[in-house]
Amino acid sequence: MKLSLSALGRRQRPSDISRLMTTALERPDMLSLAAGFTDNASLPLHDVCDIVDAFANDGETGLRTVLQYGTNQGREKLRSSLVSRIEKMDSTEVGSLDPSRMMITNGSQQQLYIAIQTLCDPGDIVLVEQPTYFVFLEMLEGLGVDARPMPMLESGDVDVDGLERVLTSMKTGGEFERLKAVYLVSYYANPSGHTVSENAKRGVAKLLSKEDGKVAFIEDAAYRELYFETPSEAPGILGIEEAANLPLLYTSTLTKPFASGLKVGFGYCTDSDWLKSMLSVKGQQDFGTSHFSQAIVEHAIDSEVYDRHLSDLRRMYLKKMICLDEALGDRLRNLGWKWTRPSGGLYLWARSPDGLETDFDSAFHAACSGEGVMYVPGDLCHANRDPRDFARLSFGVLNEEKLLEAADRYFLAADALNSAV
Amino acid sequence: MKLSLSALGRRQRPSDISRLMTTALERPDMLSLAAGFTDNASLPLHDVCDIVDAFANDGETGLRTVLQYGTNQGREKLRSSLVSRIEKMDSTEVGSLDPSRMMITNGSQQQLYIAIQTLCDPGDIVLVEQPTYFVFLEMLEGLGVDARPMPMLESGDVDVDGLERVLTSMKTGGEFERLKAVYLVSYYANPSGHTVSENAKRGVAKLLSKEDGKVAFIEDAAYRELYFETPSEAPGILGIEEAANLPLLYTSTLTKPFASGLKVGFGYCTDSDWLKSMLSVKGQQDFGTSHFSQAIVEHAIDSEVYDRHLSDLRRMYLKKMICLDEALGDRLRNLGWKWTRPSGGLYLWARSPDGLETDFDSAFHAACSGEGVMYVPGDLCHANRDPRDFARLSFGVLNEEKLLEAADRYFLAADALNSAV
Repeated sequence: MKLSLSALGRRQRPSDISRLMTTALERPDMLSLAAGFTDNASLPLHDVCDIVDAFANDGETGLRTVLQYGTNQGREKLRSSLVSRIEKMDSTEVGSLDPSRMMITNGSQQQLYIAIQTLCDPGDIVLVEQPTYFVFLEMLEGLGVDARPMPMLESGDVDVDGLERVLTSMKTGGEFERLKAVYLVSYYANPSGHTVSENAKRGVAKLLSKEDGKVAFIEDAAYRELYFETPSEAPGILGIEEAANLPLLYTSTLTKPFASGLKVGFGYCTDSDWLKSMLSVKGQQDFGTSHFSQAIVEHAIDSEVYDRHLSDLRRMYLKKMICLDEALGDRLRNLGWKWTRPSGGLYLWARSPDGLETDFDSAFHAACSGEGVMYVPGDLCHANRDPRDFARLSFGVLNEEKLLEAADRYFLAADALNSAV
Repeated sequence: MKLSLSALGRRQRPSDISRLMTTALERPDMLSLAAGFTDNASLPLHDVCDIVDAFANDGETGLRTVLQYGTNQGREKLRSSLVSRIEKMDSTEVGSLDPSRMMITNGSQQQLYIAIQTLCDPGDIVLVEQPTYFVFLEMLEGLGVDARPMPMLESGDVDVDGLERVLTSMKTGGEFERLKAVYLVSYYANPSGHTVSENAKRGVAKLLSKEDGKVAFIEDAAYRELYFETPSEAPGILGIEEAANLPLLYTSTLTKPFASGLKVGFGYCTDSDWLKSMLSVKGQQDFGTSHFSQAIVEHAIDSEVYDRHLSDLRRMYLKKMICLDEALGDRLRNLGWKWTRPSGGLYLWARSPDGLETDFDSAFHAACSGEGVMYVPGDLCHANRDPRDFARLSFGVLNEEKLLEAADRYFLAADALNSAV
């Protein structure tokens, strides 16, 4: 006999990210176009150091409390700053959002986890884009929740008419009661680089608003501030009229665009019962995100260190995106690969020719391993693991020199497979 | 119609900690003997600042990676240091523990949460001491798990013979299949200040080892390093022969004895399936605790800043414990209140006379509110909320001057109730 785990415990399988990370550790010769990490050279260690020095030299012992426990919900001043920031981005009225509806979490990941935990029982359904954030898919699987792909337009937006038909057919098929949320990755998405248009957001919101608040609308805006040149004009769901009466959760991270090692994210929830329930679970999981990390980010935002850093990052990522795009360039396109330049984020989303499979067990993946380059197989980003002919290529981690080398290796693998066909 | 939450979501209720925190915020005149916070004046902001400076001035960009994502399981060097530290405390052979069985979490709280999530379905049973850590009880309730009190000896140890009878009766009653773990708060416990004796640990382990590894043994050693003068001689469960073949989880925090605002804890698990499952869930919840916090704590431990700080803390808490103990002193004992001096931790655990109730709705609680002093009602720390005649008094937060004032207020409330009877 041995320890018998819970249903949730038994449902777990090793994650695909762990697989990628293990490969990265075991094969230091590998160049990673896989990791969605930011660029080490960009990390604002001196800025963070200055902030901590400012805490220490404030002369008041009051600032020592940054090393004390904080509250479960998160620092009030940080929540207020964030609310203002969202109002500004959405061009909504000052004061239209309420800081008490915001909670601070360990990255946006924990916010998403707690949201699904409190909303979905095993067997419930969440509608996702194709493709979507693959760690979210892993999380749904871990919680026993059914990820259903929504019909998509060629543009990369949700097909709202198609979605309406899906809802109707779920009602007919008796599945609608189990539908709990629609999840959109809305800006420079991981993995596709796509930004959801304002029209599509309004369309989805309008559709959901016919369902009497039964279906939550979750927006994952993790990359919203990581545009290259100009911010997207599409407001977030908190700034969209059609969504005003829906249960909304808007979530993003503060540390991917600054210092991932601090791991601070947040969620803004318009449904008070849901929010209360999420706060209780947060209290049980860790009663509050690292207070020190929160204080650092808060100070960075209020002192504009954060925004200055963001402008630098934007220029840097644009340069690196162009570098990878051009290095893959015509030679890869001539083999039949297709992708478009994103206007923000960290990824190129490339489609292979003739349905060539890119999954972990594919000949193409083996060829890339042989050449010493890693990518994220596109099937991981699709509910039902289909289609299988995409690759997510990140220009986040490597410097330009390494990006050129990685592009060469990727091309060699693609070329070898092409010749083999 | 409205959003319908999951079974877990619907099960949540506002936590009692939140209630205490809200009171603290709304009534700045209140002196808190409630919060299990550390003393603000003790927070090592200058040490942390020096560590961050050292990172920034290392001259190598390598150290910038402390602001990068870390791995899901946590920094390898930190895990190795921790394993050595436990081996030393348990006087076990160097190398007897394996760093790959250790995971880093957001405080020990997240470790406990993930442990119970992966082990227990709603309706399952965990055996706890009377009294026990009240946030653990809230978490069990939140996860729908049944907290069952174990029979206790006058000494504060688990009554092992009584426990054997409980196990037998659970088998007879068909409940044994639902029993998943025994949970002990083993050193200078929250709330009782009690340290579990080596004999009691061995006794429990021996009993559980008859159950073929079906019941996990969880040790919460959060306060182990917060002894006042000499460390307890009782080894942790990882150092106990009788426990060698059991599924064990040993958990503690690194930041309560250093800087709670960093929020770094850990768990060491001897059962590999359970550990794998917990790591998957950790990956879904946040894929790794703040890498920056981990690096700071790692550096503090390796440079002995951590141990130097701990020695200072021990002296300080001893002094504050004596301060509160003496300030309550004979006058409160003369009213029939009873407590003993702990040899570590942050709490006095006081029993009221004649079963006088201390819960939130009691006359005594109202009297304390009137006088402006807060404590944790003892019923919160008991499964089934019984007995109700204890109070947890923390000397953690307040300085000595405030402790004297708080003791006066507490005495006045007790005296008023005594006169009323």
